[in-house]
Amino acid sequence: MTGRRMAAEEMMSMYLSEKIMKEMRRRRRDFHKYPESGWTEFRTTALAAQILESLGWKLTFASELIRAEDVMGRNIDAEAERRRAIAQGAEPLTVARIGEYTGLIAELDTGREGPLTALRFDIDCVETEEAEDAGHLPAREGFRSVNRGRMHACGHDGHTAIGLALAELAAEAREALRGKIRLIFQPAEEGVRGGYALSSAGAAEGADYFIAMHLGMGLPTGHICGGTHGFLCSTKFDADFRGIGAHAGSEPERGRNALLAAASAALNIQAIAPHSGGATRVNVGRLDAGTGRNVVPPRAHMEAEARGESGELAAYVYGRAKEIIHGAAEMYGVEAAITKQGETVSAASDEALAALVAEEAASVKGAARRDIDRAASGSDDACWFMRRVQERGGLATYIGIGADTAAGHHNDRFDFDEKAMDIALELLFKCLLRIGGRR
Amino acid sequence: MTGRRMAAEEMMSMYLSEKIMKEMRRRRRDFHKYPESGWTEFRTTALAAQILESLGWKLTFASELIRAEDVMGRNIDAEAERRRAIAQGAEPLTVARIGEYTGLIAELDTGREGPLTALRFDIDCVETEEAEDAGHLPAREGFRSVNRGRMHACGHDGHTAIGLALAELAAEAREALRGKIRLIFQPAEEGVRGGYALSSAGAAEGADYFIAMHLGMGLPTGHICGGTHGFLCSTKFDADFRGIGAHAGSEPERGRNALLAAASAALNIQAIAPHSGGATRVNVGRLDAGTGRNVVPPRAHMEAEARGESGELAAYVYGRAKEIIHGAAEMYGVEAAITKQGETVSAASDEALAALVAEEAASVKGAARRDIDRAASGSDDACWFMRRVQERGGLATYIGIGADTAAGHHNDRFDFDEKAMDIALELLFKCLLRIGGRR
Amino acid sequence: MTGRRMAAEEMMSMYLSEKIMKEMRRRRRDFHKYPESGWTEFRTTALAAQILESLGWKLTFASELIRAEDVMGRNIDAEAERRRAIAQGAEPLTVARIGEYTGLIAELDTGREGPLTALRFDIDCVETEEAEDAGHLPAREGFRSVNRGRMHACGHDGHTAIGLALAELAAEAREALRGKIRLIFQPAEEGVRGGYALSSAGAAEGADYFIAMHLGMGLPTGHICGGTHGFLCSTKFDADFRGIGAHAGSEPERGRNALLAAASAALNIQAIAPHSGGATRVNVGRLDAGTGRNVVPPRAHMEAEARGESGELAAYVYGRAKEIIHGAAEMYGVEAAITKQGETVSAASDEALAALVAEEAASVKGAARRDIDRAASGSDDACWFMRRVQERGGLATYIGIGADTAAGHHNDRFDFDEKAMDIALELLFKCLLRIGGRR
Amino acid sequence: MTGRRMAAEEMMSMYLSEKIMKEMRRRRRDFHKYPESGWTEFRTTALAAQILESLGWKLTFASELIRAEDVMGRNIDAEAERRRAIAQGAEPLTVARIGEYTGLIAELDTGREGPLTALRFDIDCVETEEAEDAGHLPAREGFRSVNRGRMHACGHDGHTAIGLALAELAAEAREALRGKIRLIFQPAEEGVRGGYALSSAGAAEGADYFIAMHLGMGLPTGHICGGTHGFLCSTKFDADFRGIGAHAGSEPERGRNALLAAASAALNIQAIAPHSGGATRVNVGRLDAGTGRNVVPPRAHMEAEARGESGELAAYVYGRAKEIIHGAAEMYGVEAAITKQGETVSAASDEALAALVAEEAASVKGAARRDIDRAASGSDDACWFMRRVQERGGLATYIGIGADTAAGHHNDRFDFDEKAMDIALELLFKCLLRIGGRR
Repeated sequence: MTGRRMAAEEMMSMYLSEKIMKEMRRRRRDFHKYPESGWTEFRTTALAAQILESLGWKLTFASELIRAEDVMGRNIDAEAERRRAIAQGAEPLTVARIGEYTGLIAELDTGREGPLTALRFDIDCVETEEAEDAGHLPAREGFRSVNRGRMHACGHDGHTAIGLALAELAAEAREALRGKIRLIFQPAEEGVRGGYALSSAGAAEGADYFIAMHLGMGLPTGHICGGTHGFLCSTKFDADFRGIGAHAGSEPERGRNALLAAASAALNIQAIAPHSGGATRVNVGRLDAGTGRNVVPPRAHMEAEARGESGELAAYVYGRAKEIIHGAAEMYGVEAAITKQGETVSAASDEALAALVAEEAASVKGAARRDIDRAASGSDDACWFMRRVQERGGLATYIGIGADTAAGHHNDRFDFDEKAMDIALELLFKCLLRIGGRR
Repeated sequence: MTGRRMAAEEMMSMYLSEKIMKEMRRRRRDFHKYPESGWTEFRTTALAAQILESLGWKLTFASELIRAEDVMGRNIDAEAERRRAIAQGAEPLTVARIGEYTGLIAELDTGREGPLTALRFDIDCVETEEAEDAGHLPAREGFRSVNRGRMHACGHDGHTAIGLALAELAAEAREALRGKIRLIFQPAEEGVRGGYALSSAGAAEGADYFIAMHLGMGLPTGHICGGTHGFLCSTKFDADFRGIGAHAGSEPERGRNALLAAASAALNIQAIAPHSGGATRVNVGRLDAGTGRNVVPPRAHMEAEARGESGELAAYVYGRAKEIIHGAAEMYGVEAAITKQGETVSAASDEALAALVAEEAASVKGAARRDIDRAASGSDDACWFMRRVQERGGLATYIGIGADTAAGHHNDRFDFDEKAMDIALELLFKCLLRIGGRR
Repeated sequence: MTGRRMAAEEMMSMYLSEKIMKEMRRRRRDFHKYPESGWTEFRTTALAAQILESLGWKLTFASELIRAEDVMGRNIDAEAERRRAIAQGAEPLTVARIGEYTGLIAELDTGREGPLTALRFDIDCVETEEAEDAGHLPAREGFRSVNRGRMHACGHDGHTAIGLALAELAAEAREALRGKIRLIFQPAEEGVRGGYALSSAGAAEGADYFIAMHLGMGLPTGHICGGTHGFLCSTKFDADFRGIGAHAGSEPERGRNALLAAASAALNIQAIAPHSGGATRVNVGRLDAGTGRNVVPPRAHMEAEARGESGELAAYVYGRAKEIIHGAAEMYGVEAAITKQGETVSAASDEALAALVAEEAASVKGAARRDIDRAASGSDDACWFMRRVQERGGLATYIGIGADTAAGHHNDRFDFDEKAMDIALELLFKCLLRIGGRR
Repeated sequence: MTGRRMAAEEMMSMYLSEKIMKEMRRRRRDFHKYPESGWTEFRTTALAAQILESLGWKLTFASELIRAEDVMGRNIDAEAERRRAIAQGAEPLTVARIGEYTGLIAELDTGREGPLTALRFDIDCVETEEAEDAGHLPAREGFRSVNRGRMHACGHDGHTAIGLALAELAAEAREALRGKIRLIFQPAEEGVRGGYALSSAGAAEGADYFIAMHLGMGLPTGHICGGTHGFLCSTKFDADFRGIGAHAGSEPERGRNALLAAASAALNIQAIAPHSGGATRVNVGRLDAGTGRNVVPPRAHMEAEARGESGELAAYVYGRAKEIIHGAAEMYGVEAAITKQGETVSAASDEALAALVAEEAASVKGAARRDIDRAASGSDDACWFMRRVQERGGLATYIGIGADTAAGHHNDRFDFDEKAMDIALELLFKCLLRIGGRR
């Protein structure tokens, strides 16, 4: 064991207390109970702000940076969401400071020369209704979502809690560090809506190292991947069909059926041919059509996404989907309007940084297996940050932190092994010490 | 002109004041502004109760009669609806008296021997979002619906106002009448949900004459039909598809797609073959599927209706729809549950009563054309009352009161010529005098 | 019994021999065994020509009259069909005389002044594969179709045989008749393809009376309807989709899938909303798509029909079908071409003539029940003749001759009670005597 | 240049005459003009047999080996095909010798000890209609397919011609060779139907080396790949839907629509979710439904295929397709029967043999670029042979011979650069000399 390694281990035992880990789990369960979907994370942002400020981190709210024209997929009743957030425990004054857009950047300047390391934690939930039977641990142990149709079904509750615990560790270990640490609490990762606005606004500007991480990802607890490649490019889009309502019994011929147009479009979109150039994905995730039972449906709203291993492949799928939507509308003589709601690119981890992470993982308690790199099977708008940092000469990686899960990501029974949070916290802290530890 | 006729005309000029007609229009616009969908008509019921009670009618709330097992298609948050009704002007105490179910029966006993004449007025609205541009008169004149997704697009606002005006006229003309008059303010006619419960509960029990009426129906202002036949039998039903959610990008194969099952079912239901035995109709009026954009949709909810000129034809369509729903569910390996939400039968007006109405129409101001009978093209659960009264030896009719309309029934631009209300009021009053006028 | 009636009965017993009826059945079974679909009836035409000529009727082949531009839905290999007809027993020289188009007009001029009575018999078969098990009488008794995919499943084999037997009767009873009798053996009634060309060409020109008849029609043996109304207007059309083939495994994205476009079109065409103006029908009866299993299907051929109680209704359905086909093609980026293949109008029997028929039916052996008029539920291009004759002052009717059937019309197990042929023959002969009997 | 290499070059110039190459092209165009789909290659087999026998190769017809139970996807009218083959130039006696199944094995025994090298050439065509305009070279130069709906759109005409030219070369160079050479002319590769039966029957038994080759494959003329990996596993299957026919106008409700069931199945099959475990493919390549335009379609026949990078993935797609077919049948109350028509596994080339091929390619005239290995994007039932030879200790490879093509494989405008045939012939001959050349 080298001297540096010994020092790191001492540091861990010094700072990584039971108390911090316990608090991290408590916070994760609190976030889980009050999940907030993309762009509505007023409570999460406010709580994070309070904690970070109390620890001495310097805050910049996302609203101070983001340009309105870069914002995608934000269809919310902000005032109602702020009221809800306050009703669910957020400090009214902090909520007021958040401004229009949720999300937060916190920076710790050690005052010593050294690299700028930026870490991205996503904070939003999935729009699904959480399982409520006792077989589902959050239901059994009382931290099931109280927000209807919203659920932390992708582990971002854990990410947020890890980010805050890391902020605590780093603040306490400040004297052992040099350079700057920046924590980016990103809104609206689901639907890849928030990453573009925040990265375009310069949230990761100047970073020498950029780290994003995700719990689960199909890996068991204890398995760590230092890096990831092969993220799918993705375009999120809505289609709105507008037809003509009519009494379905007495004059059905006067209607223009938007529901059938949308149902046809959905079926045929899902049947878009695969591509020999690589993997593609398409999903019509939401369809809301019609007004009343006995009215020829005059409207339909569809939410969908197109993905591909490359930008060309995603564009192929999106292009075909647009053709299908317009053709289906023509079939029924209805109007169709398509609007882009989110978008992300692909990116790959830098091997040097991924390898460094994998090395650090070797001494992490409970880290049974480690790889340098793995292939992603989904999309993450952390890629916008990764690309931008890499283009400017920095190194970026996307760490996979294995976690046993009760069901797949986005499933209504998703739940993860909280031990994985301890592993993630220790790993990230060790990476900070390795990259920006005092020499 | 006979003596009776002369007396009636005198009566009209005595009672049918401008004031009553003006108040009828004012009330109609008030109901239009605060439309309430089936089983949520707390405000309408409360307002009607206050007015009727002040006129001396004896009230029976529907809740006092209805058996829970006869109630169909009632999926409401009653507490929230009561709060809304109160916020929109209903007296809290009256709302409390309404009880569980909306609707109201009012009776006027002249104290003199004579027939019991029952009249049905339906009070609920359609679930559609009202047009909001200035081209739409209710928007232009400030009585557009303030309740999102709800609209009086079938004229029941007019029916309710006519019923109340008739109550006023009858109360004033009490001395000229004999027997009893019963006004049934029925909830949840849309979706044919309320008629069965109320008629089964005996709301029209003992009636010698039963009259229902509808404005519009494709007839221009001034055209009156004394009776109607050929109502479509109808079954309203919901289908709920339950699949399995999964991340659409990273493990699509683990999902069981309820949206696609429902979309397939919708398309194929609409393609049910017509029947040589007579006209049939089917409509999938609502489809709400999926949770989030990037989740393989684990759920779908469909609202539909099957109709036929006879019970056999409606059963044919409903039976085929059930086959299709189950087959579509099997295609996607999802579960499907079908629940009946409303039902009505067919009925035909008694020619004797229809002819009487047509005769009375002859002297109604503005009644340019009159027929004894016409064919219906829709369904109405007034048929449950008609059948029941006819089975017990009474006479029943369903009057069509022509009204110019800005768009078809259930269309978001529906609006009717209010002059038709005057015609309806005069006609109904004359019928009351003819049937139960003092000799 | 009047003197005329007595004379008629005597006539019947004189001419309507067992031999004629036996020969009629033999011929019907022969036609049944060698069914010929629309425009390919070379054998049937040739056999009829030989018989009629031998009886002294004057022949005009359809080819001598028909204008090419009036011909619809003729996609045949005429040379191959002529060879087949000859191989199946038609005289080569007679086949040569038939010319381009099948069908035949035969006239008998009594030489005495009197009315011209025209009768239409359709001679083509349905394109369906006949059942082959012993439960199916034609299979059991050895006259099942030997022409693959073709079957007399609508009784035209019977019609043709009745027409020929009537020709024999009339020829024998020539001296008892006056005026002229014209028998029109029409090709391609299925798909309403031949009637327009033949009627436009003047085949029924100058007729004072026009009679068409059909066996079966849902009536049991012995039930006769003197007339029919409410035929559906109908348009027959094909749609051809042209896409781009590609290897389905190695480059699926390069294909343009015509099969999926056609399948989508078929589903959505069948889902065209019914019309409040009256009954409509639509059927996609054939779909033939793709080339090989592993090729993205570059082509699809669809055969369909639209019907309606009125021309407007049929046009509504056809118009919607065209929109759907073009929209479906756009969905898949394929080309679609629509071609009209047949068309017919509606017509109604003249009550005077229908009543005359019903009267004559009274004395027909086995005619247990008779009506003057009934509603049709299908289409028949005899309507083109009826309209034309009526427009020129003649009377027309379409007689329904009840016949018990083993299965519905067009079903592969269709077969009819041959007793109905005797009834039809006697009835038609009596009508001839009544209309054009010698005074 | 080594001595061996020099000897090979001498050999080439000695044997690889202009005459052989010219004859190879002539034969290719002849095969192109008379394409025969899987299991109907009577003419091709007969011609090959005559040529090979005249060259002194020992023949074994496939019928002598194949077990009936191993045959997949053989739905032919053998007698009619034999007649056609004879009409198109095959020797009747040779056709008789072929027996039930097409295909042929030819062996040349040098009489000297040495390895057994087996080469597979597939001989069947694709079921597609060839383009006929002058822009398509085979049409312009007069060797367009004369067999309707059949076309050599995958280059097997070239493969067969190359195999025969190689047989000629090897026979002439016999003295320079040792061991044995076996040429397998395999029927029914399209649809992966013939490979299993022939390989199971031991056609490649005892082979030390096994070589299959394919022209085109997306590589330009001059590009050679010594080996291939990643073939898709594939299952070919038919679905037959049996419903009930009925007259679409007069009693549509009595029908059970097999066309709509099949159309629904096709759409939903194409919409089977992709799999995170690797690439999958599905194609409904043929749909033939209905009988006549005005008959509710009582039948539908569908031909489809499922593919996957692994057996599990292909099974996933096939399993889902079966669920969908049964569900669609249930939707329409029709029967569905699914039958397997072909199947193949995956296989990978042995690197040692692939490298040897790539080395030999270095001296082939016109071979501008060479690789050792590439990824396949389709399926080939040569894999059955490859697996079997590899399991028994032999080496196997699947060579890609680049060829410029006018359109993609299986497209109706497919045509390849015939220069590629020269390259293939020289390469294969050099491989024979390298593997089994006399020392």
